[in-house]
Amino acid sequence: MGEYVAPLKDMRFVLNNIVDLNALSKLDGFEHAESDVVDAVLEEAGKFATNVLSPINKSGDLQGSHVKDAVVTTPDGWIDAYAQFVEGGWNGISAPEEFDGGGLPSAVALATVEMWNSANLAFSLCPLLTQGAIESLLAHGTEEQQQTYLKKLVSGEWAATMNLTESQAGSDVGALRSKAEPAEDGSWRISGQKIFITYGDHELSENIIHLVLARTPGAPAGTRGISLFIVPKFLVNDDGSLGARNDLKCVSLEEKIGIHASPTAVMSYGDEGNCVGYLIGGENKGMACMFTMMNSARLNVGVQGLAIAERAYQQAVEYARDRKQGQAPGMPKGEMAPIINHADVRRMLMTMKANIEAMRCLIYLNGECLDKAHHHPDETVRAESMGMAELLTPMSKGWSTDLGVELASIAVQIHGGMGFVEETGVGQYYRDARILPIYEGTNGIQALDLVGRKLGLNGGAPVKTILADMDIVVQELAQTGNEFTAMSLQLGLAVSALKEATDWLYTNAPNDPNAAPAGATPYLRMFSTVVGGYLLAKSALKAKNLLAAGDGDKGFLDAKIVTANFFTAQILPQATALLGPVTEGANTLFAITEEQLSA
Amino acid sequence: MGEYVAPLKDMRFVLNNIVDLNALSKLDGFEHAESDVVDAVLEEAGKFATNVLSPINKSGDLQGSHVKDAVVTTPDGWIDAYAQFVEGGWNGISAPEEFDGGGLPSAVALATVEMWNSANLAFSLCPLLTQGAIESLLAHGTEEQQQTYLKKLVSGEWAATMNLTESQAGSDVGALRSKAEPAEDGSWRISGQKIFITYGDHELSENIIHLVLARTPGAPAGTRGISLFIVPKFLVNDDGSLGARNDLKCVSLEEKIGIHASPTAVMSYGDEGNCVGYLIGGENKGMACMFTMMNSARLNVGVQGLAIAERAYQQAVEYARDRKQGQAPGMPKGEMAPIINHADVRRMLMTMKANIEAMRCLIYLNGECLDKAHHHPDETVRAESMGMAELLTPMSKGWSTDLGVELASIAVQIHGGMGFVEETGVGQYYRDARILPIYEGTNGIQALDLVGRKLGLNGGAPVKTILADMDIVVQELAQTGNEFTAMSLQLGLAVSALKEATDWLYTNAPNDPNAAPAGATPYLRMFSTVVGGYLLAKSALKAKNLLAAGDGDKGFLDAKIVTANFFTAQILPQATALLGPVTEGANTLFAITEEQLSA
Repeated sequence: MGEYVAPLKDMRFVLNNIVDLNALSKLDGFEHAESDVVDAVLEEAGKFATNVLSPINKSGDLQGSHVKDAVVTTPDGWIDAYAQFVEGGWNGISAPEEFDGGGLPSAVALATVEMWNSANLAFSLCPLLTQGAIESLLAHGTEEQQQTYLKKLVSGEWAATMNLTESQAGSDVGALRSKAEPAEDGSWRISGQKIFITYGDHELSENIIHLVLARTPGAPAGTRGISLFIVPKFLVNDDGSLGARNDLKCVSLEEKIGIHASPTAVMSYGDEGNCVGYLIGGENKGMACMFTMMNSARLNVGVQGLAIAERAYQQAVEYARDRKQGQAPGMPKGEMAPIINHADVRRMLMTMKANIEAMRCLIYLNGECLDKAHHHPDETVRAESMGMAELLTPMSKGWSTDLGVELASIAVQIHGGMGFVEETGVGQYYRDARILPIYEGTNGIQALDLVGRKLGLNGGAPVKTILADMDIVVQELAQTGNEFTAMSLQLGLAVSALKEATDWLYTNAPNDPNAAPAGATPYLRMFSTVVGGYLLAKSALKAKNLLAAGDGDKGFLDAKIVTANFFTAQILPQATALLGPVTEGANTLFAITEEQLSA
Repeated sequence: MGEYVAPLKDMRFVLNNIVDLNALSKLDGFEHAESDVVDAVLEEAGKFATNVLSPINKSGDLQGSHVKDAVVTTPDGWIDAYAQFVEGGWNGISAPEEFDGGGLPSAVALATVEMWNSANLAFSLCPLLTQGAIESLLAHGTEEQQQTYLKKLVSGEWAATMNLTESQAGSDVGALRSKAEPAEDGSWRISGQKIFITYGDHELSENIIHLVLARTPGAPAGTRGISLFIVPKFLVNDDGSLGARNDLKCVSLEEKIGIHASPTAVMSYGDEGNCVGYLIGGENKGMACMFTMMNSARLNVGVQGLAIAERAYQQAVEYARDRKQGQAPGMPKGEMAPIINHADVRRMLMTMKANIEAMRCLIYLNGECLDKAHHHPDETVRAESMGMAELLTPMSKGWSTDLGVELASIAVQIHGGMGFVEETGVGQYYRDARILPIYEGTNGIQALDLVGRKLGLNGGAPVKTILADMDIVVQELAQTGNEFTAMSLQLGLAVSALKEATDWLYTNAPNDPNAAPAGATPYLRMFSTVVGGYLLAKSALKAKNLLAAGDGDKGFLDAKIVTANFFTAQILPQATALLGPVTEGANTLFAITEEQLSA
């Protein structure tokens, strides 16, 4: 199998045609994001992914991370790769220049995050978590906290973790029991045990900044009584140098199905009664801070779904071009054909390609919305963009990670028996991908977030906006000529069904507390798939215009139109058909008892 | 996690209401298959699965099989469990009594095969392969061959393997190169290397009978020049005792994603030029013999898909009843609810349950068709039944194994973070399941078999028969009262769409060699899902009658109706929506080049 190669053509296409990179580069803070700079960044990032991260992906899986005496050792090559990652300035390319960041838009940074994760998902979790902490500190940290931690986190010299989960508090984060007691010096003493802490310990960075959710004395029950604390592995002296080792440790690592190289730690805080933490964002404001971290992390986990699918796709295409079996129609008689010439293998590859390109549109668009939400001069645009980003986030996370698993599985299938053999490497993607629909809020939680919070956000404004833009695309397709008639029809049907499902949820959710939860998962799938179809259709329109102007890579643009056609003809009907399942309500779900389910 | 418990209620329901067990017991050779005997057999089999096979499933995965100096060692407990399996007479319960078999119908045997595979899929592969050899010997062996091998294979004292695949000959079995040269004594000398040989070597049985496909001198190219050979690990003396060690060996074992305990061997035949084989079924008749083995094996692999889903389901229900997170509507305020009370978890469980029960109907029905094909006194019925069995086989294999993967993945999801941790055991099902859509003919091959061979079989008679019975069920539902109106409507829509897709294939396949292959996979999914819906709807009608008669377990029968409703409302619309994808043809599949796929 070859190393990963960044799909620069498609990344650039999405950044210039779905995202308006040119407009982003005119916003405050993104002055350097000019087209040629972005091009150069992506190209260098691609090289780094191919040459540094990709070659240690499989060896990392085989070797895994290990813990001994509370010290975690990562696989061979990890330390060196991380040092190069920091050295290259990759860790903070979207952080503000004020903190030595690259000042690039999220939309661009997401393309690099995609590359890191395609090349080596287990490695890339370390910077992914650091990124969440950076955003949390930027949004909620005091100036002193920002000065103390941000530059080191932005550079990557220090890494960070997110500590939410406890054994009794998973999806129900409000059930957590870790404690924070005030100390005389204004800091806090943290105690408790956290599980599933990604990169909870490692030797890649000189310090690790743990962000830990805990309860202060007398805090209200549930999510309203949660506070967030900065808990460094090594305390930081006033001059910025490292001080005493804090009272926290890695107790054990989980044996997992995949991402073996990423240490998933049980962390214990305050065993000696002296774990120092610093409140961030105010007492009982932990949920707000957590959402800052999580929204970043959720979008980035969505990228992971896209990334693992892309990696699996590249390997599947390569295998399908090499492997010869059977005769294919139209191929020379008597010779075995590369399996890429068999219709069913084509179907699998096109299914991967179309979904991947749709996800890329959704995710980069989601990033652009965040960029505008933070950097646009017009307050109204900022608010609207934030609304749209929030609407898209559960789709980016939920849909892309479900697809990550499904498409990795297709890549295994394309490899036949070799796909089930670890040697090929494609099995690793299937195993690694399986965590993605679970962590950073299970996809069930994403679906509840979509129907429970995001549909009603700003009086439903983001939903109305995107549905209206879908209508425009349907119209444009219809007006553009015969080649887009079928696409217009299919997309139109899907948009109608989506509107009907959405209306049903608006109407029924207030009366039946189980109506929206019952339909949440098919609704997320439906909405995301329709968004995917709409963005690919938009891509096809753009491609047609570019072709008409004689602009760009003809082969690539032709393929874009075919891919959009494939998506609307082959994939979109499944979304349209989810109208029934969404609007069935909870009837058949609760019509039998627990005992009947067990019988 | 608890041990597997055989779902005896549902197994019996299917055997008595979808299969006509009573009628089977009246056929020649099945005299002992009376209801009480079958009940007792299933109950004992369930105990064996729970007490002997299930407890060593996870330890077997952790330990794996290993090879050293060409000798394979299976995990701890394997030898003892296999000895008990043989001792209990489980290996040959559907073999003819003439060869010391149990003389039970396949439909019943499949229920036990389901149990073995739910309890321990990696273990159960050994008898699964032996079963294929038994059927091949029964159909194609000379009387001497039958006398020499069958009793030992039926008892399980000897095991068997199937040797088709070579590195250049996977799906394209006609490309195999292994050779057979005639020897003076009428036997043959075999040479060649085979890969992916399940249980290619082990210490469970005193002998292993390898069935090996090879080419004789001057044989035609492709599948028409293939012959099948019996190649025993130890030659058999005239008195039935074991003779010399044959010239064959296990070269290595594959490192796989799952079924670690099942040794997947590279086998080398004739390294010393003295590998003795015996022709079975005549020269160049290997494909026919292979299909006998494979049809049995394909149905049994379909059972594996069902079985792994059932095991994963049982564990998911147990977890969902135990694990408490969050508040659920209708549950006591302020208390965490078991997650089984959350609508989205219910949806996942119902999706598993409904698909599992549908698969069970399809597979046992497939078994009944085989029983009638072999044992019915009326030649016409035998031929019709064989046609129906052949139509159903690619669906049993393809659909059930795709679902095995999908439903195991859902079970992981229900476990949340714990699902990704190997400790829980559910990850093993996700890993083990992944081989099922690949071996015994990839699901792409199953789909091609369906559209390429089975649709046209006997002038399309089996297809017409099943579609006509679907119409009857749609009508019966409509006439039975309000409670089945929605089911009738959904099933009716799905059957109409299936007919349209079928007609499209009949019309277009002759003109475009890629038309049927392009639609094959969605068509298999569509057809199978509609069959599943129709059989569950039939089950609901039967359940209603039983309820009206005050007969049977009310809770179980009520649940059956709910499950059928869930399937038709939530799952069937996806099948209906496959009409478009099936009838799109190959256009978008081949509209871009290999290079464009790689870009």
